[in-house]
Amino acid sequence: MPKTPIPDSETRATAEHAKDLRLWLRMLACTNLIENHVRAKLRSDFDITLPRFDLMSQLERSPQGLKMGELSKRMMVTGGNVTGITDQLVREGLVVREDSPKDRRAYIVKLTAEGRRSFRRMAEAHEAWMVALFSTMDEKQRDELYDLLAALKNSAAKVAAKR
Amino acid sequence: MPKTPIPDSETRATAEHAKDLRLWLRMLACTNLIENHVRAKLRSDFDITLPRFDLMSQLERSPQGLKMGELSKRMMVTGGNVTGITDQLVREGLVVREDSPKDRRAYIVKLTAEGRRSFRRMAEAHEAWMVALFSTMDEKQRDELYDLLAALKNSAAKVAAKR
Repeated sequence: MPKTPIPDSETRATAEHAKDLRLWLRMLACTNLIENHVRAKLRSDFDITLPRFDLMSQLERSPQGLKMGELSKRMMVTGGNVTGITDQLVREGLVVREDSPKDRRAYIVKLTAEGRRSFRRMAEAHEAWMVALFSTMDEKQRDELYDLLAALKNSAAKVAAKR
Repeated sequence: MPKTPIPDSETRATAEHAKDLRLWLRMLACTNLIENHVRAKLRSDFDITLPRFDLMSQLERSPQGLKMGELSKRMMVTGGNVTGITDQLVREGLVVREDSPKDRRAYIVKLTAEGRRSFRRMAEAHEAWMVALFSTMDEKQRDELYDLLAALKNSAAKVAAKR
């Protein structure tokens, strides 16, 4: 008998389950594996949490700044209290709050120049980690995976929208 | 110019980024899309949260029960306080705590018969949601995706283990 593997989300999938369920659990296992690796690297190399990195990443894409509600919606990583993370980044001088030019009652959040520099250093490392994580797949496999995920995203988005 | 799409994690990827980063962000977008759909369906159809479903799912796979530490490690979904979720499931009669036969200081957590029945109803629905989500991909595409994700899991696990 083979050695019992370390359990992950795919371990739940047994032969009687539909193939689509196995596919999903395998995808979830991959995503968790990569996300946990990124979380650990961000902590060890930059002493930052994944939700904070994620928040800065959203702001970097919006140089004009984002309202808090918009920022919350765009955050891809759970486990972060957007207000709390923003407060902390403001104290560290990486992020600023400004009055919204369009809405007197709202304010917008932006990266500072320092925040932008800090994010760019992390983003460069993050990209290198991805290259390493995908390194044993050849280019053809990665291209195929990229195309298949486009098909899945399209398929899943249609179903999710119908709900 | 095309209409601005709804931002998701893939929106972050721009042409100057490495292909591997784009691949990861697309995978993260797919995973978030499906996970959010499952979260919404669990709530609307079964009035249950995803972390509670995930916890019951881990227990269903271990009829002999799991220690709390082991259960925490196996939980695939973030955002859940394992002790709090367990307490709530115990109050609802879906889960029991028992003394561990091997360790006097520890206890193990198990599904009750009622918990098992309840989980099975949800798991059946969950499987049907997956079939629907993957429905517009043909069988060949799904087989290819399944195989490529195996290659990715293998590749990423090696890199993550070296850290």
